Amino acid sequence: MEKKSIKDHFIEYIRNLQDGICSRLEDMDNGARFHFDDWEREGGGGGHSGIIEKGKIFEKGGVSISTVHGRLPELIRERFEVERGWFWAGGLSLVIHPRSPMVPPVHADVRYFELYEDPEMSEVRDQWFGGGLDLTPCYLWDEDAVHFHRVLKSACDQFGGELYPAFKKECDTYFYNEHRSEGRGVGGLFFDYLRPTDKRTAEDWYAFTTEVGSVFPESYLPIVERRKDEPYDARHRYFQEIRRGRYVEFNLIHDRGTLFGLKTGGRTESILMSLPPRVRWDYDFTVEEGSREAYLLERLKNPVDWAEYDEK
Amino acid sequence: MEKKSIKDHFIEYIRNLQDGICSRLEDMDNGARFHFDDWEREGGGGGHSGIIEKGKIFEKGGVSISTVHGRLPELIRERFEVERGWFWAGGLSLVIHPRSPMVPPVHADVRYFELYEDPEMSEVRDQWFGGGLDLTPCYLWDEDAVHFHRVLKSACDQFGGELYPAFKKECDTYFYNEHRSEGRGVGGLFFDYLRPTDKRTAEDWYAFTTEVGSVFPESYLPIVERRKDEPYDARHRYFQEIRRGRYVEFNLIHDRGTLFGLKTGGRTESILMSLPPRVRWDYDFTVEEGSREAYLLERLKNPVDWAEYDEK
Repeated sequence: MEKKSIKDHFIEYIRNLQDGICSRLEDMDNGARFHFDDWEREGGGGGHSGIIEKGKIFEKGGVSISTVHGRLPELIRERFEVERGWFWAGGLSLVIHPRSPMVPPVHADVRYFELYEDPEMSEVRDQWFGGGLDLTPCYLWDEDAVHFHRVLKSACDQFGGELYPAFKKECDTYFYNEHRSEGRGVGGLFFDYLRPTDKRTAEDWYAFTTEVGSVFPESYLPIVERRKDEPYDARHRYFQEIRRGRYVEFNLIHDRGTLFGLKTGGRTESILMSLPPRVRWDYDFTVEEGSREAYLLERLKNPVDWAEYDEK
Repeated sequence: MEKKSIKDHFIEYIRNLQDGICSRLEDMDNGARFHFDDWEREGGGGGHSGIIEKGKIFEKGGVSISTVHGRLPELIRERFEVERGWFWAGGLSLVIHPRSPMVPPVHADVRYFELYEDPEMSEVRDQWFGGGLDLTPCYLWDEDAVHFHRVLKSACDQFGGELYPAFKKECDTYFYNEHRSEGRGVGGLFFDYLRPTDKRTAEDWYAFTTEVGSVFPESYLPIVERRKDEPYDARHRYFQEIRRGRYVEFNLIHDRGTLFGLKTGGRTESILMSLPPRVRWDYDFTVEEGSREAYLLERLKNPVDWAEYDEK
């Protein structure tokens, strides 16, 4: 693969990944279908958002790709302390909110960014990959968290044993609701600014990032399969809606991606596609001691080394 | 009133105001009662939060007072570019989310702040008042917005004709969902940093701020009375839940008060008491042309001069 074609390879990759994931989710839901919205970005580029709503299994989900380019928005110029510049950014991001409180929501994304000296985007000044996944159960079976993390660890380990521990830790740190002193969920991976170094080329990071994207179905769908027929009632649904509130809080208060998107003129509906369908806030909601709800909250207080976790 | 006693007068004022408002709301609901939580702030002071939930009229509401003091939090030191200092802050804030989509939610708050040179809080370095109210209907009767604004204008006009237009405009600017290009509601008043000047003493601003707090029942309760028996069905409730989502977006993305509170170690449950009880996010929700829902959205695009509005 030639260095200058990473961008084109990545575009092809995220298109295929979107197709593949949407098909798998539709097959599994066996009812709802994705519908797709194309949108253009003022200033350059656009996106292709896939949305599934009111399915049997998937109450709301989005699997979207976008490739945008143009002059660097002011916020990025400030962050990188550059006076001018042009950029290209492409990525896939997905969020799934299942109907059943027993099936955990999940988020995943992969992205690639290039910065240029010139408007023709010929002189690359900087380039990096980013991405991540995290699982946010309402009712937690330890074995689900273990499965999720082991798949991610296997994917990472092919590229160096130091990657999984580092990016797992970044995930625990990033997806954290500081104002609640609790994790958003049971973690996964988070990585950003993966630039070429002496040790790894841009092609290496391409291979790593696309591998992480590609194992998403294997990390998540077996969990859906295992939990989709678990019985639940209104009480479980109530707790699910409360937990979704915490998810909204994270995305709107803390998530740099969401805030950055909204403040740089991203498409609001595509960005807020990540918000859950039905949500509830009670004042000072509490759970019963010793309950399954309490077990989840206990588990979210401190990160757990799920890949090494002994299930009994 | 001696200058040094403004703080004590204000404490007494917000206590009485909380009692009065809670009684009026309980009488009106004729079912649900407020329950009160006392809490202490690490570092000094605390609060008395009144909460009403699952009432006949009021699905969720909070009327809280707090008086906190201590060393200036880092965020405030940065904002005011001071290296050290001590503060006292007191206020009442309320948010009401009625059950019926026909009864508009409302927010109101009044607050007073003192900054000191010394930990004994004897040398006042700076002092100011702030506050505001805004009405956020789902189904809009123009006459309700007119009533609300006329009451606020009368209250302001006693202290100078320039105040209502200035603070009405600040409200329209502040309670604006930039990422949606729409107002949070039909506005009201917003004011902050009201410091003693050549023209007005701290006592004058005390009189103004407390007057605004005191007219809250008159500005809002007649609207509840008029709308509480309006019929509605699941379709109206659906739209209400969508609109509540916009309310959450404002509070978590844009509201300086909320973000500041969460980031300076405020009590999370008291701050997020403002969030609505049940909320919904659909992807790319749209309304029918010519509908009442469309009328609201049209009205929120640009500020309306409601106090001068000709109802026909």
